[in-house]
Amino acid sequence: MINKLVDKIKKTNAPIVVGLDPMLSYIPEHILKKTYSEFGETLEGAAEAIWQYNKEIVDATYDLIPAVKPQIAMYEQFGVEGVKAFQKTVAYCKEKDLVVIGDVKRGDIGSTSEAYAVGHLGKVQVGSQKISAFDEDFATVNPYLGSDGIKPFIKVCKEENKGLFILVKTSNPSSGEFQDRLIDGRPLYEWVGEKVAAWGEEHMGDSYSYIGAVVGATYPEMGKVLRKVMPKSYILVPGYGAQGGKGKDLVHFFNEDGLGAIVNSSRGIIAAYKQEQYAKFGAEGFAEASRQAVLDMKADIASALG
Amino acid sequence: MINKLVDKIKKTNAPIVVGLDPMLSYIPEHILKKTYSEFGETLEGAAEAIWQYNKEIVDATYDLIPAVKPQIAMYEQFGVEGVKAFQKTVAYCKEKDLVVIGDVKRGDIGSTSEAYAVGHLGKVQVGSQKISAFDEDFATVNPYLGSDGIKPFIKVCKEENKGLFILVKTSNPSSGEFQDRLIDGRPLYEWVGEKVAAWGEEHMGDSYSYIGAVVGATYPEMGKVLRKVMPKSYILVPGYGAQGGKGKDLVHFFNEDGLGAIVNSSRGIIAAYKQEQYAKFGAEGFAEASRQAVLDMKADIASALG
Repeated sequence: MINKLVDKIKKTNAPIVVGLDPMLSYIPEHILKKTYSEFGETLEGAAEAIWQYNKEIVDATYDLIPAVKPQIAMYEQFGVEGVKAFQKTVAYCKEKDLVVIGDVKRGDIGSTSEAYAVGHLGKVQVGSQKISAFDEDFATVNPYLGSDGIKPFIKVCKEENKGLFILVKTSNPSSGEFQDRLIDGRPLYEWVGEKVAAWGEEHMGDSYSYIGAVVGATYPEMGKVLRKVMPKSYILVPGYGAQGGKGKDLVHFFNEDGLGAIVNSSRGIIAAYKQEQYAKFGAEGFAEASRQAVLDMKADIASALG
Repeated sequence: MINKLVDKIKKTNAPIVVGLDPMLSYIPEHILKKTYSEFGETLEGAAEAIWQYNKEIVDATYDLIPAVKPQIAMYEQFGVEGVKAFQKTVAYCKEKDLVVIGDVKRGDIGSTSEAYAVGHLGKVQVGSQKISAFDEDFATVNPYLGSDGIKPFIKVCKEENKGLFILVKTSNPSSGEFQDRLIDGRPLYEWVGEKVAAWGEEHMGDSYSYIGAVVGATYPEMGKVLRKVMPKSYILVPGYGAQGGKGKDLVHFFNEDGLGAIVNSSRGIIAAYKQEQYAKFGAEGFAEASRQAVLDMKADIASALG
């Protein structure tokens, strides 16, 4: 799956991933009106609205991009109905041949981590059957519990040719509270990065590992260091756009082969029509606004990478 | 909700929580046979089996215990159907007046953490409606992302009188890989514990905070230190029983008032009938075996606490 991701990045010439993190406040009134009139102001109505919104955005952008990253929290908040919309979104994106990164930030230990891994990336055994549940291509995982938490995920990834992005240095302002603290003179995130590199050796693709890392665009200097600590790990870079990261900040996340990083934008793409720059598309043209925002993001990153 | 938890612990004289972490391998053949014949060897069949298994265990133990802790990974692995069984289990336990600790180990930042918080502990806004989705009483949360990740949960907890247990020192063998590393001479878990104490001050109950901590029974010496670092935080203690923690290890997790900790057992209770000690109950009597295991655990802890 890492090979497919690299191939698709090369083919689309777009090291970017669209974050499908639908908030009801992003969804145009005409969609909400229609789904609420059919299902009421219910969890089902909300879930149907986010599904329809996602589908239009995917239809308008899938040929330009290698991957999407649905953030499961935005679905889970609507309970079972929301989780159904997550599953439907994952399945639809895979139909469109997009690589799907499930932004689930799961993490537990032993058989519990394995349960998350089979549910999101693998197949669960039910009697004599092996059945896929959510079936994303990659999942994001939290490293706080150490190797016992990560290895069960890697085991399933090996069986299924799937991959992980492990949180190393997150994009938020307070990420340094624990991640930046110095241990033997080096910040925690570097120690985590070293572990990611070591775990990654256990599951290599052609040129990159199936085991990647998350490093926020908002910390370019740390990205530069981490790029060297984990030379074979793909870096998933959140924080571009709405969170303040700019194209020029991204250079150091890439390797000299022009690969090694994939930059996420969520709100900046999926709610583009709400920005002044794309206001001309109007709410009815929200998906076309998203397409234009993808084109602009590609150009911004291409120009930054020279 | 922390006040209710403390009251129920006093009334039942049982500082214990039953971990509802159903694995298909724990479920007696007669239940699997019945559900598979009705629903097939499908995700629906598996989900129905874990629900029926849970229900019998809850019916056989609810009068003895203050709380349950369903581990969502064990449900999520069966996809949407599994998540439905999780929701059903939470709702049923609340009907039985049990305090429900959702062991979800979620953690993200900003609006994403808030989405997890409203989904699991609060109410989500859909048009003019505010709707509960999973509606647990407490949730476990991962601290790696810092205050930006935790504060949105606390905000929702304040609105709903709900609570958290934040991972501090986990019970697994490799938890020390990051958690034990020294920062200015003190391990990371102590720094996290201090933050938990500080966050806890923002949302106090009568004698304890709504914001608790997770500290593994397998690390009693660290529990002793953390007890002092977070005097007002309830400590959720996993790792008793199957993971190797014993009653005597638990003493230091409690305060002098005999309160301040709640000890989890999962496999040791819910799959008790598989142990030699409870074999006499047989597979048909699995729920009665669980009841006996709860009584034995209560006695073990009571004798350890003197």
